[in-house]
Amino acid sequence: MIKPVLVFLLFYVHVFMLQAQTSDDAFVIKKIYETALAESNAYEWLTHLSENIGGRLAGSPNSYKAEDYTQHILDSLGVTTTFRQATETTYWNRKEESQVFAHLTDNAKILLPSTSLGNTIGTEGKEVRAKIIEVNGLDEVDQLGEEMISGKIVFYNRPMDPTLINTFNAYGGAVDQRAFGASRAAKYGAVGAIVRSMTNKLDDVPHTGSSIYEDGVKRIPSIAISTNAAEMLSDMLSRNPDLELSFSNDNEIIPNQTNYNIIGEWKGSEKPDEIIVVGGHLDSWDLGGGAHDDGAGCVQAMAVVEIFKKMNYQPKHTIRVVMFANEENGLAGGREYARLAKENGEKHLSAIESDAGGFTPRAFSTDGLDSYFDEKFKKVSSWFTLLEPYGVTLIKGGSGADISPLKEQGPLLFGLRPDSQRYFDFHHTAEDHIEAVNKRELNLGAAAMTSLIYLIDSYGI
Amino acid sequence: MIKPVLVFLLFYVHVFMLQAQTSDDAFVIKKIYETALAESNAYEWLTHLSENIGGRLAGSPNSYKAEDYTQHILDSLGVTTTFRQATETTYWNRKEESQVFAHLTDNAKILLPSTSLGNTIGTEGKEVRAKIIEVNGLDEVDQLGEEMISGKIVFYNRPMDPTLINTFNAYGGAVDQRAFGASRAAKYGAVGAIVRSMTNKLDDVPHTGSSIYEDGVKRIPSIAISTNAAEMLSDMLSRNPDLELSFSNDNEIIPNQTNYNIIGEWKGSEKPDEIIVVGGHLDSWDLGGGAHDDGAGCVQAMAVVEIFKKMNYQPKHTIRVVMFANEENGLAGGREYARLAKENGEKHLSAIESDAGGFTPRAFSTDGLDSYFDEKFKKVSSWFTLLEPYGVTLIKGGSGADISPLKEQGPLLFGLRPDSQRYFDFHHTAEDHIEAVNKRELNLGAAAMTSLIYLIDSYGI
Repeated sequence: MIKPVLVFLLFYVHVFMLQAQTSDDAFVIKKIYETALAESNAYEWLTHLSENIGGRLAGSPNSYKAEDYTQHILDSLGVTTTFRQATETTYWNRKEESQVFAHLTDNAKILLPSTSLGNTIGTEGKEVRAKIIEVNGLDEVDQLGEEMISGKIVFYNRPMDPTLINTFNAYGGAVDQRAFGASRAAKYGAVGAIVRSMTNKLDDVPHTGSSIYEDGVKRIPSIAISTNAAEMLSDMLSRNPDLELSFSNDNEIIPNQTNYNIIGEWKGSEKPDEIIVVGGHLDSWDLGGGAHDDGAGCVQAMAVVEIFKKMNYQPKHTIRVVMFANEENGLAGGREYARLAKENGEKHLSAIESDAGGFTPRAFSTDGLDSYFDEKFKKVSSWFTLLEPYGVTLIKGGSGADISPLKEQGPLLFGLRPDSQRYFDFHHTAEDHIEAVNKRELNLGAAAMTSLIYLIDSYGI
Repeated sequence: MIKPVLVFLLFYVHVFMLQAQTSDDAFVIKKIYETALAESNAYEWLTHLSENIGGRLAGSPNSYKAEDYTQHILDSLGVTTTFRQATETTYWNRKEESQVFAHLTDNAKILLPSTSLGNTIGTEGKEVRAKIIEVNGLDEVDQLGEEMISGKIVFYNRPMDPTLINTFNAYGGAVDQRAFGASRAAKYGAVGAIVRSMTNKLDDVPHTGSSIYEDGVKRIPSIAISTNAAEMLSDMLSRNPDLELSFSNDNEIIPNQTNYNIIGEWKGSEKPDEIIVVGGHLDSWDLGGGAHDDGAGCVQAMAVVEIFKKMNYQPKHTIRVVMFANEENGLAGGREYARLAKENGEKHLSAIESDAGGFTPRAFSTDGLDSYFDEKFKKVSSWFTLLEPYGVTLIKGGSGADISPLKEQGPLLFGLRPDSQRYFDFHHTAEDHIEAVNKRELNLGAAAMTSLIYLIDSYGI
């Protein structure tokens, strides 16, 4: 039996050590934030990626430039090695942007701001013209059935719910229309699908994004119109249900392209076989510069190495910075990374992704296998008093699309959760350029990720 | 003595009631947020204020338009009454913007982006030309003394500290140069003061703001240059210490103007003599539209009434929405409001100000008289679990310039603390327009303020 005085002493020493440790950690994290805010080049890298290179959809010429550029930056940061993982991708190329007209009379028509949705087929040089049926979602199409749908253009106009605080939840509640609307409408004989853009903002900016054709269903064109145009079209239809819409567009699909995950590996000094992944996806939609989605995540991940190097911090575990290929149009990069990790018997301690924009960080959400999750969540939660001064909390939830295929191999996954209010002002649009990114907000995200990795590296999981 | 079983029962009932209450409150607060996000007209009011009316410095023609407009809105919201409180103001009018040139040679000069600082005198049609001495702050001017300063232009170039997380702290650490730089330099015979703009961002946008002349010291012109210009000028000086600068500007001072606090009063149903103030300041610098500073605070304060009315909520205490006059150039409105409150023996329960931009709210800071502060802070803190889902915390600190004169009369003061990263990208510049404000972020601020007032109204302080 341990005597009370000894218990007391042990307790005292334990508390003392914890405090000493915590105060050291607080100092390191302060230094991480200071370095990120005063010295990081993340914003300059992002400017190059989004403006000098630009939109970089998988398989596009720009996608290869982005691979070369980020590998060059990773090399210049002094990681141990950089390498590539090949993935097969299909290049969907927007040859001629959609033109959508609402026909008021035989000789008066209004051009609606529009954009072809990713993977859609084109109209093969023709103009498709038909009456419109406005619906609230996929279910209503099923209810209306062939009699009401056949030969018409289905207009999906359910808005994102403005009352949800987190805009990603509102997006999740509306995006089925964009993803599955065309095939659902085609089942009942529709000739095209027009989808209200995925944003809470009322403006003239159309938002693209992936649309997915169901196997065995006729492929019909799938086009987004701006929210203002959707409001106006709905209004016109309420006065004239026989209003016709016409549209044309031209796209090509070029299969069998090769894109690469770009990886910078920095070997750990004590546990080189235990890997911490940090990354974003390198591809972006073609309309803008992919600044928030997801250039921000890519440069923040690279900045983790930059910040540690500037601080002369040598991680104990191996850090892998991964620029994932083709998240937007199939998740090829994330799947291939996980497949190879399994095949090579690698041990991943943790993986962190930033893919929700370069805004002020508010939280990390975390995810992992049920068998250990609550225990690990508790341990990691205890670190977050250190991030309180920076307004960053830990919540349960998903992580990131690219790292999620790793989940079954056991690492604890994290997704950076920045303030979400502005994200869907820019998401998948021609407005997603460097001007939409605030340098300090971007750097705060890099600092939050570097701090989390420092804590994982210090205490394990 | 109360029997244990009774204690247990009382405890049980107490806990039960607390929970019932809390769940009702959570419901009301959810409804407040939903109403703010889906139905508020705050953004439309702000668009009118910042774009149709525009910059509205105290005493300017626009300042009167802004008074009429906000009184009209308050009337239309159905408050019990609206009224005005007269304040005497001095109109500083920027007649001809500053022109600042760096002279490379006798016939090569560079125009630096610049703006006259508020209250500065002009050069009376002349161009002032002199050598420059760059300093790190007011103390360095004292150290250099007359020998080094006399006949020169003093160039204040200490940047805002980029490593501080809260940008208001960085502003507070640099703004003495703008406020007091001219008089300090004039004491030692300087002919002008040039001040690096108050922002962390490196760009070509000059920031104005108040400069204050010391009584009995010769008045010399006081001009801000953009941060990029400051960096370039410093660089040029390091190569050529004899570099000369020239400047000219023209301003007029028109005393004895009258501006008004615009007040909408909504009588409480149970305690009409206990007042909760909510407000912002109506004046703004002339360069931009005063969208963030402080149109945002004004429309958020008006939205408190709008949201309650849409919810059919009748406050128990009297709510006063106050558009304070002339914060930027003397705080005349805030002082007069407090003076009249005292003179009329009014009882102010609380006062809340929003004057830190229309960004996503992160916290309220609170302030009050020492005699009760800790106790009240504890009580109010207990409410904030209700605001956790909205990411809003309570911190100790200041409140707002306009409500601070009320402090000595005893109300608990609150300042809305939005995310601060972008504020000084726009503050006091030609960029402070409606495009810089995100509608959802603005409405979230209004919702946070309405929620706090609902809790004060429900539980007192």
